[in-house]
Amino acid sequence: DEEEKELRQRFMAPPVSGLRELRRRRRELRSRMELLIMETQAEVCRALAALDPGASFAVDSWERKEGGGGISCVLQDGEVFEKAGVNVSVVSGLLSEEAARQMRSRGKSLKAKDGKLPFCAMGVSSVIHPKNPHVPTMHFNYRYFEIEEADGTKQWWFGGGTDLTPTYLNEEDAVHFHKTLKEACDKHDLKLYPKYKKWCDDYFYIKHRGERRGIGGIFFDDMDSPSKEEVFQFVKSCAKAVVPCYIPIVKKHCHDSFTPEEKLWQQLRRGRYVEFNLVYDRGTKFGLLTPGSRIESILMSLPLTARWEYMHTPPESSKEAEILEVLRNPRDWVH
Amino acid sequence: DEEEKELRQRFMAPPVSGLRELRRRRRELRSRMELLIMETQAEVCRALAALDPGASFAVDSWERKEGGGGISCVLQDGEVFEKAGVNVSVVSGLLSEEAARQMRSRGKSLKAKDGKLPFCAMGVSSVIHPKNPHVPTMHFNYRYFEIEEADGTKQWWFGGGTDLTPTYLNEEDAVHFHKTLKEACDKHDLKLYPKYKKWCDDYFYIKHRGERRGIGGIFFDDMDSPSKEEVFQFVKSCAKAVVPCYIPIVKKHCHDSFTPEEKLWQQLRRGRYVEFNLVYDRGTKFGLLTPGSRIESILMSLPLTARWEYMHTPPESSKEAEILEVLRNPRDWVH
Repeated sequence: DEEEKELRQRFMAPPVSGLRELRRRRRELRSRMELLIMETQAEVCRALAALDPGASFAVDSWERKEGGGGISCVLQDGEVFEKAGVNVSVVSGLLSEEAARQMRSRGKSLKAKDGKLPFCAMGVSSVIHPKNPHVPTMHFNYRYFEIEEADGTKQWWFGGGTDLTPTYLNEEDAVHFHKTLKEACDKHDLKLYPKYKKWCDDYFYIKHRGERRGIGGIFFDDMDSPSKEEVFQFVKSCAKAVVPCYIPIVKKHCHDSFTPEEKLWQQLRRGRYVEFNLVYDRGTKFGLLTPGSRIESILMSLPLTARWEYMHTPPESSKEAEILEVLRNPRDWVH
Repeated sequence: DEEEKELRQRFMAPPVSGLRELRRRRRELRSRMELLIMETQAEVCRALAALDPGASFAVDSWERKEGGGGISCVLQDGEVFEKAGVNVSVVSGLLSEEAARQMRSRGKSLKAKDGKLPFCAMGVSSVIHPKNPHVPTMHFNYRYFEIEEADGTKQWWFGGGTDLTPTYLNEEDAVHFHKTLKEACDKHDLKLYPKYKKWCDDYFYIKHRGERRGIGGIFFDDMDSPSKEEVFQFVKSCAKAVVPCYIPIVKKHCHDSFTPEEKLWQQLRRGRYVEFNLVYDRGTKFGLLTPGSRIESILMSLPLTARWEYMHTPPESSKEAEILEVLRNPRDWVH
């Protein structure tokens, strides 16, 4: 029918839960969140595709035999983007032992019924690796989690964040990125941006290098107050801020000229990106350990190419040393 | 003096424990093992350098403030080798909580004295990544561990292995490699090769891909019988087999012609190598978690360059599919 056609045009693919079902439960937060992540996926994909007219997103819908599924959109080897992926997943089932253990270690008390914990998890997750070393890599992820305990009560929380990984420091871009995120946060509570900015610097830390992955942004997890509705509105503001955060920076630099040396430094930084994602990133590790997870969607976050040189150290006072200094000692970009 | 000069010529750098000290304790197994790993390092470096005359090994001696140190030899961006590293490390001190926990989880009963466990660990470790996709990557590692318990008794064990990671399958090379290893094992006990060949296939498993890293070789750990002397002699045979295992394969293929498509497949397999090393390899994970460890020496195992493509699947019956089949279902190469 007409409504269905319209919805199909709004999204990259039909939603995992089905349009009919989402319409039927339209007041439930689960449904509203699923619509938000689907809209965010489409919005970001369209904004990226508009900047890279020769390339297009491959769209894969996949199912998980344990329950749920997802939609992966990946653009590879374009003019502007080396690799850009925007994934949606909506999965449900019973929490694995390992997953429950990890959540309890974060302080959650999860009372299981006959050892079983029904859960529902959904999110949108994206990593954009551009070709030009003057255009930064960007990552964002917004997710919602629900677990049903033995007595029937539901635990729920939201998590997410948006962060930037430049190859070279551009202070104007850093300020624009953080300012846009701060504005999205400030509409809800002035305490959020400073708290989540610091959390981001702490989370994206490559301990064995003593460096952050990038110049940060915001990151949060286990957010369950003041109320489900208010947290959802906050997450919605963050998701809507992705395009205005990032797209102006891509437009500004995607035609900048660059040298082979600058491309090489980008490749070395891509190596660090791989190190963070495979060694530390909780989402990646969780995904690799979860039976039935879709590996290609999880590892879509890895760059097309990366490089490791033994004992590479940029010369003092170089542009390469300048960004390293910021990765070692994060700065405040907005006050 | 003369003897010192001679020893310096035998090795890539002066041994960590000092020549005088090694000479003084020449009957102790620790000293004999340190000499073996130093000799192996020099033997392998010289054999590789002879095949890549334009390039040379950078030699770094480093100290660990908690005790001991090492010697890293790295050849980068040569004609034949993209990256070749051969490391020696000889470290001692007190075992970290985390390290003791990991060892106990492998079944060791370690009784600490006032919570302290003095240990000594030494080994030689190497990864060789050639440029030509028809020359396989090779890895080996031989190590010795000693821990002093509360009552003064010493626990000790050896570990190690040698394994091959080809981009394309060459059955003749696979047979030569495994046969050379089998001969080294068979001199000591006919049960060793089959047992350690299987251990190797099990250890180098990239679980999330359902693939092994390569076509195997041998791998063992916690080897502490029949006697210290006999295990040392076995490890010595394995270490001496590295050059005859691998160098003939490099010589045979280093001038083979190759296509850009073959180079691309090599880069994708390099990506898998990175996945194994950062996600699963016990040595790498242990190193990244150990305070004061030398990160550049640990991550020397990563290739110079690697690549990740979303949803890459080689066509059926291609040469790429042929090696994947072997990585999914390991074969017996010698009987």
